[in-house]
Amino acid sequence: MKKLINDPEAVVREALEGVAAAHAGRLAVHFDPNYITRADAPVSGKVAVLSGGGSGHEPLHGGFVGPGMLDAAVPGAVFTSPTPDQVLAATQAVDSGAGVLHIVKNYTGDVLNFETAAELAVAEGVDVAAVVIDDDVAVKDSTYTAGRRGVGATVLAEKICGAAAEAGRPLADVATLCRHVNGQARSMGMALTSCIVPHVGTPTFELGEDEMEIGIGIHGEPGRERVKLEPADAIVERLLGPILDDLPFRSGDRVLALVNGMGGTPLIELYIVYRRVAQLLGERSIAIERNLVGNYITSLEMAGCSITLLKLDDELTQLWDAPVNTPGLRWGA
Amino acid sequence: MKKLINDPEAVVREALEGVAAAHAGRLAVHFDPNYITRADAPVSGKVAVLSGGGSGHEPLHGGFVGPGMLDAAVPGAVFTSPTPDQVLAATQAVDSGAGVLHIVKNYTGDVLNFETAAELAVAEGVDVAAVVIDDDVAVKDSTYTAGRRGVGATVLAEKICGAAAEAGRPLADVATLCRHVNGQARSMGMALTSCIVPHVGTPTFELGEDEMEIGIGIHGEPGRERVKLEPADAIVERLLGPILDDLPFRSGDRVLALVNGMGGTPLIELYIVYRRVAQLLGERSIAIERNLVGNYITSLEMAGCSITLLKLDDELTQLWDAPVNTPGLRWGA
Repeated sequence: MKKLINDPEAVVREALEGVAAAHAGRLAVHFDPNYITRADAPVSGKVAVLSGGGSGHEPLHGGFVGPGMLDAAVPGAVFTSPTPDQVLAATQAVDSGAGVLHIVKNYTGDVLNFETAAELAVAEGVDVAAVVIDDDVAVKDSTYTAGRRGVGATVLAEKICGAAAEAGRPLADVATLCRHVNGQARSMGMALTSCIVPHVGTPTFELGEDEMEIGIGIHGEPGRERVKLEPADAIVERLLGPILDDLPFRSGDRVLALVNGMGGTPLIELYIVYRRVAQLLGERSIAIERNLVGNYITSLEMAGCSITLLKLDDELTQLWDAPVNTPGLRWGA
Repeated sequence: MKKLINDPEAVVREALEGVAAAHAGRLAVHFDPNYITRADAPVSGKVAVLSGGGSGHEPLHGGFVGPGMLDAAVPGAVFTSPTPDQVLAATQAVDSGAGVLHIVKNYTGDVLNFETAAELAVAEGVDVAAVVIDDDVAVKDSTYTAGRRGVGATVLAEKICGAAAEAGRPLADVATLCRHVNGQARSMGMALTSCIVPHVGTPTFELGEDEMEIGIGIHGEPGRERVKLEPADAIVERLLGPILDDLPFRSGDRVLALVNGMGGTPLIELYIVYRRVAQLLGERSIAIERNLVGNYITSLEMAGCSITLLKLDDELTQLWDAPVNTPGLRWGA
């Protein structure tokens, strides 16, 4: 196992110490239980947006904490759900009285632990709404999931709901918006190589030198099929077809296209993927109105990519364009 | 070779097509010869800042084209210098009459080809100044270099000189500033794994499962020594020691610290590296006034990192903080 780490058991804690050192003044990193908040949390009168999940998907979620996006992120151990007490503490820390939206990726542990935390928070007088993200069209059920998995749409929901909360919308509205984003987004991913979970020390799965996994999960859980390597253009067709068919996306639609790297794939390859996405959507008269190309929801050092399409409307585009200031996504008015 | 590519010979062209599709309206991508400019180039009355070099180091340089940073980037083939005609065409395209600064990483081919292009541009009436970046303390001469190699300081020079040009400073001033940045910056890198150049198809170098290369170059050229794997903290000490000793950086100095990923290393590990950088500089009473953690100057999918320190003064900090709007670095006023 070749990694820039010290003790495999201390990876998350030490990375959080690095985040604290790098972003002091913008982020507040809390330990035992671990969570990250905006430095100015709770923001008076504003609905707080909170997400979390296993570590190893950075910049998701900690890299998306800041004005215009998340108020708090709750990192579990690598590929392991955060505990209810972590989520509860973060929820209480960011609640200004206007309530807290939990954005939860659909993995069984995450869903259960966020539910427990929400019940405890409500008992403490915090208004909590939860939305489960399940945009991955690859498989119905999976190793860690009943139903579809939550992947790239999480990034988009965090940005869009963060903007809505910043604009002063009430909790019920922001939750409805989050369900709308999830409903209009579809994703699928693939892997060229496995990743190695630090405290495990061996590859999560084995792939032959001439093989790839189509429909991979972000923890390396199995996808639709294992096939022989193909050129990037053919891979894009394998991912985009099921995405387009599922919503379905139709001629005349306007979309946000996210081409996401799994962590070990260089940017130059992601642009080759984006090129083909743009060609195929162009052929179908689907307009890419916004795009994002880079590493946003990763699987440690896995090589591969995922594609997410979100069907846009004027409201979603406007919220996407709103200012955001986080380590992982940042732009002005 | 597991890559998201089609024809290995078409990697750069297809990636540029992806860049063109993703950033239409903000960037203009020209083919045959290949170069990228701001969509609004030439900017009337403004000194233009241009850089370039072999591809495979993305987001450097094309990802740094935009207001507040580069006016043009000139990508060669993977790990291969751009040709003089490419550099000349880009230089002419961005010159508004106020002159063009060439920021050149110190590799023999780059230096020669930029020199030739500058001579041709001057003969055509363009005022050109060139600054060679050579911040890598690892080795004196190397596979592709006489003298020290240019690495992470290039990113910082592009940002800072871009801000100065945007502020209306004349060419001679911006060139002096660029030499100042180079003079105040030092870097060193390391690799856990090799990368594979697409048109070669085999690893650039071989490293044992328990080995790493300290002082690696961004094309995989040899560094100072090949040693057994160590914990991240010890690796940081190996890189930071020579950097600190070389300028030297002293107690009371204010610095910008760049922890850069080589392409295949996840962000969670880069924050573990940053944590130790912050600890060690804290022990020496060197203040990290600004920082940057992520993939900025990469070597395809190589796993590893580099550290760059730039000694700051009020002018450099102010120029660093100035607004920038590029695919790879973006922030508002």
